[in-house]
Order: sequence, then structure tokens, then C-alpha cells
Amino acid sequence: MALLCPDEITQLDSADPLASFRNRFALPEGIVYLDGNSLGPLPRETPQRLQQVVEDQWGRDLIRSWNTHGWIDLPNRVGAKIARLLGASEDEVIVADSTSVNLFKLAAAALREMPHRRVILTEASNFPTDLYMLQGLANFLGDGHQVRLVPPQDIEKALSEEVALLCLSQVNFRTGALHDVASVTRAAHRHGCLVLWDLAHSAGALPVELTAWKVDLAVGCGYKFLNGGPGAPSFAYVRRELQDRLEQPLQGWLGHRAPFAFEPTYRPAPGIQRILCGTPPILSLVALESGVDLLLEADLTEIRAKSMAMGDFFIRLVKQRCGDLAPGLASPSEASHRGSQISLRHPQAFAICQAWIARGVIADFRAPDILRCGLAPLYLSFGDLWRASQLLGEILESEAWNRPAFFRRSSVT
Amino acid sequence: MALLCPDEITQLDSADPLASFRNRFALPEGIVYLDGNSLGPLPRETPQRLQQVVEDQWGRDLIRSWNTHGWIDLPNRVGAKIARLLGASEDEVIVADSTSVNLFKLAAAALREMPHRRVILTEASNFPTDLYMLQGLANFLGDGHQVRLVPPQDIEKALSEEVALLCLSQVNFRTGALHDVASVTRAAHRHGCLVLWDLAHSAGALPVELTAWKVDLAVGCGYKFLNGGPGAPSFAYVRRELQDRLEQPLQGWLGHRAPFAFEPTYRPAPGIQRILCGTPPILSLVALESGVDLLLEADLTEIRAKSMAMGDFFIRLVKQRCGDLAPGLASPSEASHRGSQISLRHPQAFAICQAWIARGVIADFRAPDILRCGLAPLYLSFGDLWRASQLLGEILESEAWNRPAFFRRSSVT
Repeated sequence: MALLCPDEITQLDSADPLASFRNRFALPEGIVYLDGNSLGPLPRETPQRLQQVVEDQWGRDLIRSWNTHGWIDLPNRVGAKIARLLGASEDEVIVADSTSVNLFKLAAAALREMPHRRVILTEASNFPTDLYMLQGLANFLGDGHQVRLVPPQDIEKALSEEVALLCLSQVNFRTGALHDVASVTRAAHRHGCLVLWDLAHSAGALPVELTAWKVDLAVGCGYKFLNGGPGAPSFAYVRRELQDRLEQPLQGWLGHRAPFAFEPTYRPAPGIQRILCGTPPILSLVALESGVDLLLEADLTEIRAKSMAMGDFFIRLVKQRCGDLAPGLASPSEASHRGSQISLRHPQAFAICQAWIARGVIADFRAPDILRCGLAPLYLSFGDLWRASQLLGEILESEAWNRPAFFRRSSVT
Repeated sequence: MALLCPDEITQLDSADPLASFRNRFALPEGIVYLDGNSLGPLPRETPQRLQQVVEDQWGRDLIRSWNTHGWIDLPNRVGAKIARLLGASEDEVIVADSTSVNLFKLAAAALREMPHRRVILTEASNFPTDLYMLQGLANFLGDGHQVRLVPPQDIEKALSEEVALLCLSQVNFRTGALHDVASVTRAAHRHGCLVLWDLAHSAGALPVELTAWKVDLAVGCGYKFLNGGPGAPSFAYVRRELQDRLEQPLQGWLGHRAPFAFEPTYRPAPGIQRILCGTPPILSLVALESGVDLLLEADLTEIRAKSMAMGDFFIRLVKQRCGDLAPGLASPSEASHRGSQISLRHPQAFAICQAWIARGVIADFRAPDILRCGLAPLYLSFGDLWRASQLLGEILESEAWNRPAFFRRSSVT
């Protein structure tokens, strides 16, 4: 049954300057995709670009493609493009490895830079892999190194001369709460700490200004708002003045000053290059480039404006449609305090998520009670959000809760 | 000008039980590809499999593909397939990250397992990224940790109760010299050391028997003899009895016991799973699976027999054709002491390599004087090697050496 969208909503979509981007994605008909902050959808151009690299480059030109098709420079080339989304210089960003591995590299380098400080400060609600990697690093070094977890509101209080590194995510993965990066970074610098921001949920979703905010280090994800494909490689940012000082322990051959001289001793390459380690996964990197190229056609200010409007609109529609049954809001109610997501809280969030998916609205469940809705302005319309809210109302009004099948948990949720 | 291949060589190819595999690769006509130990060629089936994953899985099923198309198990599934090439159990191998990163993880875990020993022993002629990663690890830990480099003939002498880990490549990347893994591993175990083998140039090229050889740890490369595509992810092997003891510092969410519970504290998954770290690059992993599947159709004993015959044959042809001009042999002359490559030594190796490439024979130059010829039995014929040797003779007899263009170095060689 098609839900008919009220005229006022159709008008919002007609006035949307980003509306034409929807057709640049190969999204299936009838799907409202609220999970682009978990895995961005397929850009229409990506299959063809990938096929070209596979058949014409790998297939025909074989090993020579490292030079003739510039594979060797791909981590820098894609990094330079991502830098434009981050308010950074082209030579401050490189693509390599996974977000977890890049976080380890940069956090390890920061600890080495601060030999007399032993604390990595972060928040308990940070994305778990960030916490795990930092714990792994601190345990591995031993010698009094520790990860200190505090609630978000206590971060500034917890800064001190003991803290080597403050490591936070700009946008909280569960709630979408947005840190004021400039202000938190300033506070950390007042105590002489380095800062490392995880931009997994902000890169490509809102304007980021790493240079203006004086951020030292950052990492981020290629497969969320950059639409780089499943497990797309990650990016790492190092402020230029730090680059030639930083020593990161994952010193692989592609971070060597002369990788093809095959010298027995490591000499770090100048600049951001030393963040590279092993050979990058070219096919996944090419898909990432395609996603980034598409994003660069859009204006991040327009993306942010639409994202904020969509968030407010969605909150209002859910309240209107669901009334007393409406889930609670787990995200900040003020749009400027949120990333590009709305998280709803409901004791039956898992079952609601499954029922929504069955009706074509794909969102994420995050234990124990969060229904996480990613708002990606490039391919979502106000009409999509209207449909999602109407279907949510139907689900909440139905008797579905009494059916045991709703409460089965899948292995990946 | 087509070179006509003598009848006896045509007969060798007619009798080759692996001959039919040549057509399973999308190798361009007229190319003799002696560089499959740098980047294996494209299996014909790979583009279609990749397209299916991109369009039908990522494109249509989006985030659900992690479950419905088994992406979440792909590192294990491909690892289990690779295990069959390594004489290991299916639950002892997993695919993750790059070879460099996996080497770091396993070497770090080995040092942690041996807190009273401070030395990592390796050979000076090991592949540089292995040396760099080990140096990075030892420097990062400090506290007396060191990497000790010895010539290959001195390894057994250098083993002692100081040595935590012996880390070697089974096949030397420059010369193709093959270690006796079983015997070296036994010697290391007599001193209570752990062993970590880099199988980059052996996996898929010759039968490896990790269980029978009692190897503790191993890593290897997906893009050489496994034909997994440029920068394909790497594999890691951990002997089953060690798995639940080993703690590796790159503890990311996919190595957690319950990754989707999003707990704030790391609890390592049981078994090989804890070697995983961040989200794997699915597109590159799918291409790797395609390469491995193709290899599994062949018999590794036949591959090894043909590889040894090809090596002896090529050495003989080069001597016959080039006479006094013939390059020296940098590889062991005894086939059973070599991996699947023949390395020739010549002061003008770089120029010869360029001239060979111009004539359709693609090999590798390795500074300062090595012409490295990978022999991959699945797609090379005896006729190919005959052509390569004839063209080498022509080049050596020509006046090409006097032309300055021959001596220009490209950035990647």
C-alpha cells in the first residue's frame, strides 16, 4: 500500500537543492534507507569504475598499473579529496587500513610524543572499537599507561598534565550527540594534551574544519557517509606541523622514505606518508574514491542544512503520528547539537526495527533500546521520512508485540 | 615476430596436467607474465563475482548483506579455504588487514607470551616490511627489546634462551631460496622460542604443512600466488593450542567476543577470531576468495612438480640461448631449495627488465642487480619460458645498453 504524502511535504522535496543526488545512488525502489551511517548505499557510478580497474587495469596492465594507473598514489589522491571534506590541507590526509588500525597508529604516536604522560582520556560511551584499541595500546605498553573513561560532561574537568591524549568521537554513534570540537580541543591544548578525533559519523555528514579547529590527529570511516562500500578503508589526518615528528609503530614498507630501495632499516617517509603501512586494498580504495567524488559534487553547507531540517522534521512527524506511543528521543533535541542521525529510545526497539525493515524502512538497532536512524541528505527526501514515521505509527499501534517472532535476536543487529 | 617453439617444448606443454588453467585467467594475449609473485593475474571469474557482490549485495540488500550474504563470516570462510593450502585446520587461519599489520599483531602477541625474553631473531635479507614492522614493535616496547639480524646460515647458531621469537620468510623475496621450515622450527622450539613464518611467496606456490611442521604462527599475502587482486587482504595463522592464550594489541571490535553487544571493555573472542581487528574490506576480500577458489581446483603437488620442472628448464634455456652473455643465477640451483621463482643476476638487470617488458615478458627488477622471474604453474607454459629465454638472448646481444633511455629508473621497479 503506497502512502500518499501530503502536499506540504512534496513541496519541501521540490525545494530541496540536493534532490537530484537521489538518482546517483542505486537504491532499490520502495526502500527508505536510514542506515547510511552504518553502510552508505552504492553510488551508481561505482560498479563501472570498479569494473574498469579490475578488467582494464589489473586484468590487462597487471603489475604495471601501480605506475601507469597511479595505484601507488591512490592513498594520497583519495586522502587529498577527503581532506576537502574535513577543512584540512591535501597533504594532511591519507587513506590506509581500517579505522581501528589508524586509531592505534595515531594514539601510539601521540603517547610516544608525550613520554612523561601516561593517560589516554576518552568517554565511556565512545565507540567500543576505539575503547578496545586504546585499551590494547595501554596494556601493551604497560608501565603505568591507562585509558581513563569519563562521562561526556566530565571531559574538560578530567583534563590534566597527566593526560597525553584526549581521544573522542565527534558524533556519538548511539545518540548522535555532537561534540564542539573546537572548544574541547582548545581545552585539551590548555593542558598540553594532544587530541585525536574519530570522525566516523561526521566526515561527509557535516562541515568539519580540522585546520581552523587546530585538531592534532583524526581518523574516520570510508563506508558510512562517504559511501565507499562495505569495509572501505579508513582515513587518517595528521596536522602538518606534527607529521615529521610523529613516530607510529606500524612502520610498514609503504611508509618508508624509499620503499622500493628495499633497505633493511626503516626510515620514515616525510609527511603524512609515514602513516601508510602495508599494501592498500586497491579495489576497495577505488570504490571509496567513487563515493568521495560523488560527495564532493555536493555542498557540505547544504548537506548540513538539510540534515538539520530533516532531523527536526522527523522528530515532529514521529510525535504527531505516534502520539502517546511515540518512542523517546535519545538524541539532542537541538539540531545544532546533533550529527546526522536521530536515535529513538523504546524498550522494544529491536522488534520495532525488524518490523520497520519488513516494511521497507531500514534502520539500525543498538542494544539495549536504541532505534538509530541515519539521515543522509544526498539520498533521503522529506517524503521518505514522512513514510518512515507513518509506518512507525502503524507498527506501534499493531498487536505485533505479542508475537514471539518479534523478539528473536539475529546475530548482527 | 612470433617465435616458433620447438616440438619438444610443445610436447612438454601437451603433457602438462595443469595446462587447462591458463584459460581461467584473463591474461592478455602475447604476454609472458613472470610477475605473479608480485601481483597475480585476474582470474576470469573474478569480475563477475565482484559485480554480483557490488550490485546484488551492497546495492540491493545494503546493510543486511552482513548477515544474509555472510559478509560477517567472510574472513573465516576465506581463511578456512586458505588453510587447505597451508596444511592447517580450518579454524587456524583468518583473513584480515595487510601482511605487515598481521605480522605486527602476531609478533606482538609472541613477545607478550614470552615476557622474559627480549630478542626477535630474523635474517637481514628478510623482506624489508617484515624487518620494519619488527623494528617498530621492538622500539615501541623499548625495555631492551631488539631485533637481531643474522645471515641465513647463522640462524640456528643465533637461537638461544634470549630469543622470544624467530621470524622468517619461507621463500626469500630476492633469491627464491627456500627455508626448511620443519627443521628450523624444530631448532627454534628446542630453545623454547616461538616461530612466525611469512608465507608471502609460498602460499599457493608449493605445499605448506603448518600442522605437520608444528609452526606456531604465520602470515601471508593474498595478492601473489593466491591471485586475489592488488592489495588483497592478508591471512594469519595461529596454531590452535596457542589461540586462546595469545593477546594481540590491535584489539578491535571484530575480535571481540560479542562485537554487537558494544560493551565498553574488550573481551577477546575465542580462537582465531581475536586476530580480527576493524571491519574488513569486503570487495577486496571477495576478489581474494575468487582467486583462492580457483587455486583450490588444482593439486598443489602438481603445482610444485611443474614449478620445479619449469625452474630447471628455464635455467637451462637461458644458459643455452645466452651462452657467455647469460646472467648469473641468484637462486639456488637445486629445485628443491627454491620457491617458485628464478632470480637472475646482471649488472644491467634494470635495463634488461625494461627491454623484456617492451617485448611482452613481464618480470621484476629488484635493486641492485636482480631480475626476478616468478614461475606460476597455473598460467605459465614451457613455451612461455622458451619465448622469454629467446627474447632475453636477443636483448643481451643487442646494442641496447648504449641507449641512455635504458637507464632511466621509474619510481616503482
